[in-house]
Amino acid sequence: MSTFGQYFRVTTYGESHCLSVGCIIDGCPPGMELTEADIQPQMTRRRPGQSAITTPRDEKDRVEIQSGTEFGVTLGTPIGLRVMNENQRPKDYGGSTMDLYPRPSHADWTYLEKYGVKASSGGGRSSARETIGRVAAGAIAEKYLRIAHGVEIVAFTASIGNEFLFPPTPTHPSASTNPEFLKMLDTITRDTVDGFQPVRCPNEEASTRMENLIADFRDRKDSIGGTVTCVIRNVPSGLGEPCFDKLEAMLAHSMLSIPATKAFEIGSGFGGCQVPGSVHNDPFIKAPAVPPSQSGAASTSSRPRLTTKTNNSGGIQGGITNGAPIYFSVGFKPPATIGQAQQTATYDENDGVLEAKGRHDPCVVPRAVPIVEAMAALVIMDSLLAQQARQSARSLLPPLKQTLPASETVVGGEKAVEKARENNKGVNGV
Amino acid sequence: MSTFGQYFRVTTYGESHCLSVGCIIDGCPPGMELTEADIQPQMTRRRPGQSAITTPRDEKDRVEIQSGTEFGVTLGTPIGLRVMNENQRPKDYGGSTMDLYPRPSHADWTYLEKYGVKASSGGGRSSARETIGRVAAGAIAEKYLRIAHGVEIVAFTASIGNEFLFPPTPTHPSASTNPEFLKMLDTITRDTVDGFQPVRCPNEEASTRMENLIADFRDRKDSIGGTVTCVIRNVPSGLGEPCFDKLEAMLAHSMLSIPATKAFEIGSGFGGCQVPGSVHNDPFIKAPAVPPSQSGAASTSSRPRLTTKTNNSGGIQGGITNGAPIYFSVGFKPPATIGQAQQTATYDENDGVLEAKGRHDPCVVPRAVPIVEAMAALVIMDSLLAQQARQSARSLLPPLKQTLPASETVVGGEKAVEKARENNKGVNGV
Amino acid sequence: MSTFGQYFRVTTYGESHCLSVGCIIDGCPPGMELTEADIQPQMTRRRPGQSAITTPRDEKDRVEIQSGTEFGVTLGTPIGLRVMNENQRPKDYGGSTMDLYPRPSHADWTYLEKYGVKASSGGGRSSARETIGRVAAGAIAEKYLRIAHGVEIVAFTASIGNEFLFPPTPTHPSASTNPEFLKMLDTITRDTVDGFQPVRCPNEEASTRMENLIADFRDRKDSIGGTVTCVIRNVPSGLGEPCFDKLEAMLAHSMLSIPATKAFEIGSGFGGCQVPGSVHNDPFIKAPAVPPSQSGAASTSSRPRLTTKTNNSGGIQGGITNGAPIYFSVGFKPPATIGQAQQTATYDENDGVLEAKGRHDPCVVPRAVPIVEAMAALVIMDSLLAQQARQSARSLLPPLKQTLPASETVVGGEKAVEKARENNKGVNGV
Amino acid sequence: MSTFGQYFRVTTYGESHCLSVGCIIDGCPPGMELTEADIQPQMTRRRPGQSAITTPRDEKDRVEIQSGTEFGVTLGTPIGLRVMNENQRPKDYGGSTMDLYPRPSHADWTYLEKYGVKASSGGGRSSARETIGRVAAGAIAEKYLRIAHGVEIVAFTASIGNEFLFPPTPTHPSASTNPEFLKMLDTITRDTVDGFQPVRCPNEEASTRMENLIADFRDRKDSIGGTVTCVIRNVPSGLGEPCFDKLEAMLAHSMLSIPATKAFEIGSGFGGCQVPGSVHNDPFIKAPAVPPSQSGAASTSSRPRLTTKTNNSGGIQGGITNGAPIYFSVGFKPPATIGQAQQTATYDENDGVLEAKGRHDPCVVPRAVPIVEAMAALVIMDSLLAQQARQSARSLLPPLKQTLPASETVVGGEKAVEKARENNKGVNGV
Repeated sequence: MSTFGQYFRVTTYGESHCLSVGCIIDGCPPGMELTEADIQPQMTRRRPGQSAITTPRDEKDRVEIQSGTEFGVTLGTPIGLRVMNENQRPKDYGGSTMDLYPRPSHADWTYLEKYGVKASSGGGRSSARETIGRVAAGAIAEKYLRIAHGVEIVAFTASIGNEFLFPPTPTHPSASTNPEFLKMLDTITRDTVDGFQPVRCPNEEASTRMENLIADFRDRKDSIGGTVTCVIRNVPSGLGEPCFDKLEAMLAHSMLSIPATKAFEIGSGFGGCQVPGSVHNDPFIKAPAVPPSQSGAASTSSRPRLTTKTNNSGGIQGGITNGAPIYFSVGFKPPATIGQAQQTATYDENDGVLEAKGRHDPCVVPRAVPIVEAMAALVIMDSLLAQQARQSARSLLPPLKQTLPASETVVGGEKAVEKARENNKGVNGV
Repeated sequence: MSTFGQYFRVTTYGESHCLSVGCIIDGCPPGMELTEADIQPQMTRRRPGQSAITTPRDEKDRVEIQSGTEFGVTLGTPIGLRVMNENQRPKDYGGSTMDLYPRPSHADWTYLEKYGVKASSGGGRSSARETIGRVAAGAIAEKYLRIAHGVEIVAFTASIGNEFLFPPTPTHPSASTNPEFLKMLDTITRDTVDGFQPVRCPNEEASTRMENLIADFRDRKDSIGGTVTCVIRNVPSGLGEPCFDKLEAMLAHSMLSIPATKAFEIGSGFGGCQVPGSVHNDPFIKAPAVPPSQSGAASTSSRPRLTTKTNNSGGIQGGITNGAPIYFSVGFKPPATIGQAQQTATYDENDGVLEAKGRHDPCVVPRAVPIVEAMAALVIMDSLLAQQARQSARSLLPPLKQTLPASETVVGGEKAVEKARENNKGVNGV
Repeated sequence: MSTFGQYFRVTTYGESHCLSVGCIIDGCPPGMELTEADIQPQMTRRRPGQSAITTPRDEKDRVEIQSGTEFGVTLGTPIGLRVMNENQRPKDYGGSTMDLYPRPSHADWTYLEKYGVKASSGGGRSSARETIGRVAAGAIAEKYLRIAHGVEIVAFTASIGNEFLFPPTPTHPSASTNPEFLKMLDTITRDTVDGFQPVRCPNEEASTRMENLIADFRDRKDSIGGTVTCVIRNVPSGLGEPCFDKLEAMLAHSMLSIPATKAFEIGSGFGGCQVPGSVHNDPFIKAPAVPPSQSGAASTSSRPRLTTKTNNSGGIQGGITNGAPIYFSVGFKPPATIGQAQQTATYDENDGVLEAKGRHDPCVVPRAVPIVEAMAALVIMDSLLAQQARQSARSLLPPLKQTLPASETVVGGEKAVEKARENNKGVNGV
Repeated sequence: MSTFGQYFRVTTYGESHCLSVGCIIDGCPPGMELTEADIQPQMTRRRPGQSAITTPRDEKDRVEIQSGTEFGVTLGTPIGLRVMNENQRPKDYGGSTMDLYPRPSHADWTYLEKYGVKASSGGGRSSARETIGRVAAGAIAEKYLRIAHGVEIVAFTASIGNEFLFPPTPTHPSASTNPEFLKMLDTITRDTVDGFQPVRCPNEEASTRMENLIADFRDRKDSIGGTVTCVIRNVPSGLGEPCFDKLEAMLAHSMLSIPATKAFEIGSGFGGCQVPGSVHNDPFIKAPAVPPSQSGAASTSSRPRLTTKTNNSGGIQGGITNGAPIYFSVGFKPPATIGQAQQTATYDENDGVLEAKGRHDPCVVPRAVPIVEAMAALVIMDSLLAQQARQSARSLLPPLKQTLPASETVVGGEKAVEKARENNKGVNGV
């Protein structure tokens, strides 16, 4: 189904060549200031035609709020969003070649297998335009998260082909054990990332390597993949729903639902499988006090009292956030549509050679950056509302006398009392 | 929520130290022969205490069907399943140390942050016993898939620490381009895998390397991670729901919901990001005819007429299966609970040293093999029922005269007619 | 949430005074011919301004398909629908009076309690315009049901105030035991109903009584309620999901979600509570053969072999359809907004007198007729897809040898064989 | 599906003749004291064999908590509940007669049409034993509602056959306009209701009439229906989700999902369709102050500042609670299984006469009382958690300066200020 989320629920519609694309967002908190101006910036970051290395298809991608707000404030009712498909040009796809051949590794063939109907564009809803609704909805979620909790979500290009920002090494099979990497996660901003156009890799040298690589593939009518890393800071502890909807499971789901993705890793990821448990474990330390004024968020007091010294967990333990920065990486394959001639077969099972026309990116990674951020925002928003619901429900119950025979085993004095209080205190997060 | 799936819906309950664990399965097709004997084998493969390198906790894990069958046949009503927690020993966890410290990188701390109540076992439902319900439900799904479509699901250990079955190389950054790897995927069976106990890596030499590595970590009271690769053969084409519930998104969700997982990749995965599009693309070829008698499944005639020459896509294109084998890998971190002393902090924010007691695996990977298979079965089953519903609905509509102005652009003669027929044919898959 | 249905899922947006209202329909079978012309007729039947006894607000209510079809055929992807709010006139509501007072028995007060934000129109989404998306989606469902199964859905006005088409009598506390009523249910058509404008009660004499009553209430600036009865013919047997989603439960849910409804009854309804079981029970009889050519539907062969002699059950037994006509009634209260002065209180707790302005119906019942039909179509469509999914899944299982020890208890010979076959035959409905 | 609720989600399993029946409850707030003793009383009230006019089947119906609590406190994890089927006696149903005939108006025939498999008991999950899981789950919901908000839920028998507690009259076509009825709703308790055994109609004279009527039908091997009325007091304002999940829609859904129900009405109901709008409208008045000490609930301060003078709305306006008592009635048909001989047809289409054996109630209404209460509790709990989630989310947003240009239209001075504050105040309910 074209719906994502249980509490902050996004339903999208639209394919590449229809009248418009858009979405309905159900569950946005009432009373939040919201206009198109809050949504448009991420739409524009996602937009095609941004540089010499992205598709020249020119879409203004102006979003228009249909419902759910009045006088610039959310009503709590469903928010309808619409973006016109202004520049459709279906003829590019209707040519004699594209109609005969399912494009290799594209969705043309599988859409026909699934639906038994062939849309003009082949795999209509596998178009990158389908992601417009996601980005728009993500921008709204992100606004709430920022206001209510000071959440910051920043994604950037981490590799293109075999050009890496932090290449794996024998010492650091996962970047998660590399302090330099962790420091970047603590400080990187979206503005910094956009300073490294067109690749969006926040390092001069790496960015140049990557840009050259993409240009090279573009010139050869070929394509190349890469990875996006994303960090989410200031997420309250306690988010993520055991057991099937662990936070990393929801993030993996959301990321692998983005077109062209092949892989996901949270925290130490695949590299972490090579790190001994004694190194990989994140020991607890007392959390530094956060001055409430600093973040400007409504609920800075909710930061937990413990934090971890390292962060191989990527901010999630047992499927639940611990308050540390969440970070993950997503792998994008090389785009399937390439200009090179390809030996393949027609729909009617004859061998032949396909040369694709149309407008295509040699690498989708830079444009994927805001899409990754949007999906991350949707996941965090949904799990936040779930946890706030739980805490709100719990807060109306009387305090427990004792939740487990803890005091028996506690060494003594004030600590025991304090601990008992802690056990009984309810969820102090969020 | 503790529910997985829309059509074949599994709801689980139970933590480590309660009376029983179990699940309710809603949506199992009626009229299928089913007894405990269909479920127990995978339960036993998952069971602790299987070898010197797994936890000595001894559970019989006998599953008992509560409802939903009569005279050994499914009624179509919810199937209740229950497994007693026979060997609870809560005292192991109630000791003075474990009660004072949240175990690093375990779920103790985050469960307390989330629920505000501390269970005896710390993160109660993050226990491996929670996976019992999944494995039981998966066995039922698997039986249907095998009967109805000849689906085969086989997982195996692909790496432990830095010991790999197919290590990445400059030529093959992803094993997906390695013919030897693809051949193994085509033929590997569960029996073969279980021939390589205790590691479940189907290669003598690699298996020995891995077993030694695990033993080494066990002896040092440390732990180590690894990866499981899983292949699913004979999956009908057309499965997977655009846009948010692409099949790889559902697989990623399901796999990252297994305790201790950190990473997921489908097909070429992260390595595929380094492969040029011109190599990565899977060209179409005419599919070989499959003699209907061969698989014994109810619907062998449903194989699509085209297949792909290579399979970097991992059997999924545009989020939809194309009929080729689906394969993916899952990364498991080193278990958090280790016997070594760890410098960390207590619940009440004091520094201290934790030495964990209790019974723990130095490596969860071998026991994870049937869990990965179970979750894969649940995903395929759910998406299969979704697609069968669609096709069944469509089959009652009259044939279309023409779905797009295809004949205008087609080169000529018989081809045009054949192609028009193809367009109108409906979904022939599943 | 603003979503209805699991398989045929409708999500709506829009309130009275925003830019547009609309919906997204997810799960429509692919390959069905569909244009705006299929949807518009029911929109027009629902439209305000149809007669002297309905609100003069003039909306063209032209529906526009945004996505999900191409060349007039459904793609299987989400169908976006939009209807502009052309005639908004928010000033009618912004007057000094309406802004001070929550209208008695309207949603103004409860929306403010719920969302904490006051929309211009008071209870914005409780507006009758919210039903536009439902009617549009219902028209699409209805088209499929008609093509695939010959389903016919006809609603009509059954009472206005105390003027009844079939008043309850001591002999017939429920019309369900009245043969004349059942005969009307078998034959009534939408054309016949629309022949009795403006009330839509298909009986000359009753219609006149009702029209006069409404006119009387209109003239006194008062309002009056009434009931709509709806019949659904040719529904396959086997629809409805035990135990929480029985078909009557879904119908009740859907009907009570229509603004201004207060009551629902299926089959014999409240009156049936007074009928002895020996009379109320519907005995089985052999079903008459239906010539396949008659209905023109794709699957007439699916009619069950037994039917019932009477139909107090209203076509549903144990929550599941038995193939007989489904019928139910819905009670609509008198509209809350009346022109009469009302003694009430302001938002700030002061007593006062409210005289409502704006444009309002003295009775919503006639316009509710197509809304009831639409919601009925959505319920049947969703439960049909659920059951088709089940049957499709089951059809791939091998036949059972025997599902219960039936032959032991069966009297003899051919009957036993036939019966065993019946038990094993699978679901022959739909 | 066998699942009810989104936030407080109940999944049930079990039919009449299997090993056990039970449920999983997901979403129960953590930190609530809970043992079997909280659940058993309602189980016992629902239990068969309570009097001479109910079925003699003797089941202890002892509920056993499987998971989700520790030391008598909820952990926030899924609560598994199980009740053994101790007294199965399948032979009663396996006789030569019951196996040949589908019982008229029972679920035997439709279950076979739906699933294609015949359970021993006929329509296995349409058994009254299926309601055990509902009652158990409802008892847990009820405990939370009582602790957190002082919610009181009381149902009682309102009619049996044509014997009414408050018969409709020309003056009061709906009891909702009868002050005596409203007074009873304000004060009736469960203890009072149980003082009128076995009928549970809280009026000596009416109770006797009803008991005699049931006994009469029992003696004639016939059956009779009736209605249950239920009141829910102290429900916070703001519950119910526009537009499809209005509170009355959820109540209707839940009630019509109880076996043998045929009708539902909220507030004035069908009778209210005959009441002029000018009478039916519930004018607002200032709410009386509630001393916080009175109810003992955690959040008495949440009562809204306005209430209604009358309550034809039944506590719900625009699908949302307004804080007034919610009340509704449910119609139960005469039980389908009767001892009388019935002329009907066999499964294999032959005419014949069926005389049912087995143990059956002549009237289900008295035993339905706790089931109606349980389903009401589930609906209120779910909608409460939904609204608490919304409010919790909203509470972290900064106050709005102004939500609509209200001050322009407001007459002046302090009132305008106060009103603007009101608009901006956020949801003060719950």
